[in-house]
Amino acid sequence: MRDGRITPDEVVGVGVDFTSCTMLPAAADGTPLCLLDGFKNVPLAWPKLWKHHAAKEETDLMNEIALRRKEPWLARYGMTIGLEWFFPKLLETIRRAPQVAAAADVWLEAGDWLVWQLIDGPFPRCHSGEVVRSTCQAGYKALWNAATGYPPRAYFAEVHPELDVAVETKLTGTLMPPGNPAGKLTSDAARLFGLREGTPVSAAIIDAHAGVPGAGVASPSTMVLVMGTSACHMMNSRVEQLVPGVAGVVADGILPGYFGYETGQASVGDAFAWLVDTFKLSHAEMASRAAALPPGSGGVLALDWLNGCRTPLMDGRLSGAFVGVTLGTRPEQMYRALMEATAFGLRWIVDTLRDAGVPVRRFVASGGLPAKSPLLMQVYADVLNERIKLAESEQSVALGAAILGALAAGETATGHASMSQAIHAMARQREDVMYRPDLRARREYDRVYRLYRELAEKDGTVGRVMRELRSLPTERTQMQQEIIPEPVAGADTHPEDEDEV
Amino acid sequence: MRDGRITPDEVVGVGVDFTSCTMLPAAADGTPLCLLDGFKNVPLAWPKLWKHHAAKEETDLMNEIALRRKEPWLARYGMTIGLEWFFPKLLETIRRAPQVAAAADVWLEAGDWLVWQLIDGPFPRCHSGEVVRSTCQAGYKALWNAATGYPPRAYFAEVHPELDVAVETKLTGTLMPPGNPAGKLTSDAARLFGLREGTPVSAAIIDAHAGVPGAGVASPSTMVLVMGTSACHMMNSRVEQLVPGVAGVVADGILPGYFGYETGQASVGDAFAWLVDTFKLSHAEMASRAAALPPGSGGVLALDWLNGCRTPLMDGRLSGAFVGVTLGTRPEQMYRALMEATAFGLRWIVDTLRDAGVPVRRFVASGGLPAKSPLLMQVYADVLNERIKLAESEQSVALGAAILGALAAGETATGHASMSQAIHAMARQREDVMYRPDLRARREYDRVYRLYRELAEKDGTVGRVMRELRSLPTERTQMQQEIIPEPVAGADTHPEDEDEV
Repeated sequence: MRDGRITPDEVVGVGVDFTSCTMLPAAADGTPLCLLDGFKNVPLAWPKLWKHHAAKEETDLMNEIALRRKEPWLARYGMTIGLEWFFPKLLETIRRAPQVAAAADVWLEAGDWLVWQLIDGPFPRCHSGEVVRSTCQAGYKALWNAATGYPPRAYFAEVHPELDVAVETKLTGTLMPPGNPAGKLTSDAARLFGLREGTPVSAAIIDAHAGVPGAGVASPSTMVLVMGTSACHMMNSRVEQLVPGVAGVVADGILPGYFGYETGQASVGDAFAWLVDTFKLSHAEMASRAAALPPGSGGVLALDWLNGCRTPLMDGRLSGAFVGVTLGTRPEQMYRALMEATAFGLRWIVDTLRDAGVPVRRFVASGGLPAKSPLLMQVYADVLNERIKLAESEQSVALGAAILGALAAGETATGHASMSQAIHAMARQREDVMYRPDLRARREYDRVYRLYRELAEKDGTVGRVMRELRSLPTERTQMQQEIIPEPVAGADTHPEDEDEV
Repeated sequence: MRDGRITPDEVVGVGVDFTSCTMLPAAADGTPLCLLDGFKNVPLAWPKLWKHHAAKEETDLMNEIALRRKEPWLARYGMTIGLEWFFPKLLETIRRAPQVAAAADVWLEAGDWLVWQLIDGPFPRCHSGEVVRSTCQAGYKALWNAATGYPPRAYFAEVHPELDVAVETKLTGTLMPPGNPAGKLTSDAARLFGLREGTPVSAAIIDAHAGVPGAGVASPSTMVLVMGTSACHMMNSRVEQLVPGVAGVVADGILPGYFGYETGQASVGDAFAWLVDTFKLSHAEMASRAAALPPGSGGVLALDWLNGCRTPLMDGRLSGAFVGVTLGTRPEQMYRALMEATAFGLRWIVDTLRDAGVPVRRFVASGGLPAKSPLLMQVYADVLNERIKLAESEQSVALGAAILGALAAGETATGHASMSQAIHAMARQREDVMYRPDLRARREYDRVYRLYRELAEKDGTVGRVMRELRSLPTERTQMQQEIIPEPVAGADTHPEDEDEV
């Protein structure tokens, strides 16, 4: 407020974006269970961050039962419930910490929890009032749909009776699209943030989704690459297609009037950071050396699944790989190979959408990485054979949430009659920079992309091996702890005599 | 001599071992071509080290023609001429540096060149006398066989007319098995080394092969693991079987009276060194952390082909790989995974021999690595499910050459009537140490070995991708050298209007 030289009266609305599915159990008064004395030391009482990947068994079980029952809603999620989603995380707690599940009065997304805190006082503990849940979060992460609601009780009951009970009694509240006013800021919250009491608060939105309006994109068929530690590639379309492996197609999910497609890659910046930390070199040093390498990284090819593969394989048991390593391989080859692998992963996503009949016409990159890494953006332009613009704001996700806050304030306060008007008034793309594909690089990448796809094949050797590798022990237990080679004993002597020369 | 407190008269014979196929072109007087003024700056006039891997095209051509002609000798080499062998290297020079090929009077193994220098004066340039070539080197690396000699002229002529000429006129000399006296030490050589003039000099032997007598092994069915930067696994057998992918089966090739099998892995110590250099950690640090990991390296699996795969795939275009990498993967997991991969590679070799009906009953490890790395030896024992003894001498290759020098000196000088007697008199295995398989580790490794074999499958996805990766450019040429993203121009503007909200 101080830096922007604005007064509380000039803030006409509040928007909330949050990672998703980051979820938690709370008491009826909104207190997160992990803050209660009896639960402070129980890990499963704490919020589960989106990248919490422990609910593998639960995900498998839920998918298996949904497939067997031929649940029709599954097609909207590419026929796969994701490891990072709401119900596998809930079920994990029911199965592994039943005392936590029993004590929870409300299960909710962290974004919805924050909105709840802001609009229902006293802050930060509310004692009454209804939870307002975001249709964006529920639609993409909790299998919810405006027409049919959550999956049927019979499905949940077959998965686990307690899950059915939780869905019926602990997902209380109203569902509301982002941009609609969930309520008004309480006096406590207003004081805490230096805002005006009664300021309208929008229903929450998933952070990556907020990147679409925040990147100044109001049109369909423009893919917004929201790139940070992981990447979400969001797109609105007039076309509704159920695309295998695409994590969610939700009507009005991102912008009103369109089908919102969410696709993603579970490790992008995180993967580069892993490499830089592991090799003890700086990003700047690595990038400068990597930029001098040819497309194909001099013969090193990576699979970028260091945190599993989200779109299109939807398989958290997959992992990263480096192939083509020789005695002459240098760290920067592995670094560039990882960059190229994330580009190939994105191209695969785009190919998957186009093959299913969903047009993808334009690309806008936003988030921290694109502004920091011209090399990465050039690789993406070359691999995709597409021009890429950059969002003007490096904080396009926060800007997108602000646009939703403005919408929640209403036309009288802002003059914006529609989402599109608000977007064009508040966000845009940079005019000073556009990445264009290089013809020769593109041709080289066409070759390497084919090799990437061979390695990445859905039911191929590499994936099969990776899935089994994830089941190996990670700790040395009950094994001999030390190597103590003993002397040759009589019985051990090699029986050479019988074979003697 | 000084450290050993021995006099020249006590040295009754000289043995020569050398890496193979390390070969060079020489003038008729023995001068290596690279020492002549006109050739000093011509890379192909210099000796080619065994691990020179540039003759890929030539190897492919020679294999293709040999297969098409159904050349019967090819079966002795597992149906594949190796990339590291004599004739592909010779052909490479004929094709790529014809002036060098034309100027060469003699082409020979470096081991044979050294023997030539020792026995035909004046040292180090000899002016007369016949080259004595080792049947060991010729048998394993130059397609030679005691019964039939080199492959027929028609084969070489079809590969390249100049190759036929070279074989006919530039492979001059006598062929002689190691342990036989090639000649007597000249006065110049004796002075240089402080030895007695006239000391018998044995015909040369391939270094790894000398490791068999040097490890105190005189019996068949005992595999000697000669482990250093690369590994050769040598074995004598009463059984002659032509084993696909086994680099050579040569009668009397290692010990007289047996069929000598040479198998190998092209990078072992070299691969560990690559990893340690790349991650800037010490071997000691890596090994100590790696020892605390469970079998399977916590879910990381490597392919150990950082310098191609020798046995059993005989393919220098293959490369290394790491699969199962996650954001939590630590360098020591990759280090241990590489160790395990070399163990799996060895198990594959042993399985290949046994499947072909060649018994492998005992294991003796020698060379620098086994003494230095108890962890590596324990992994090998666990993966093979076999006991492993260590050669007493860490310099078993040199000791083996010395045993051959003693044999060349004859029974009168040494009292040894046979190779077996000489071996038992001069070399043995350590009594203080034997590695034994751990039951639980072995079971875990059985699982991971199956995964290794899936990845390593001869005509599998990974190998196919690796071979194509080797054909990618290694240098950035004619490509745009810098990334200069340009401003958005009029024509570049995303045509959003047509799609506007």
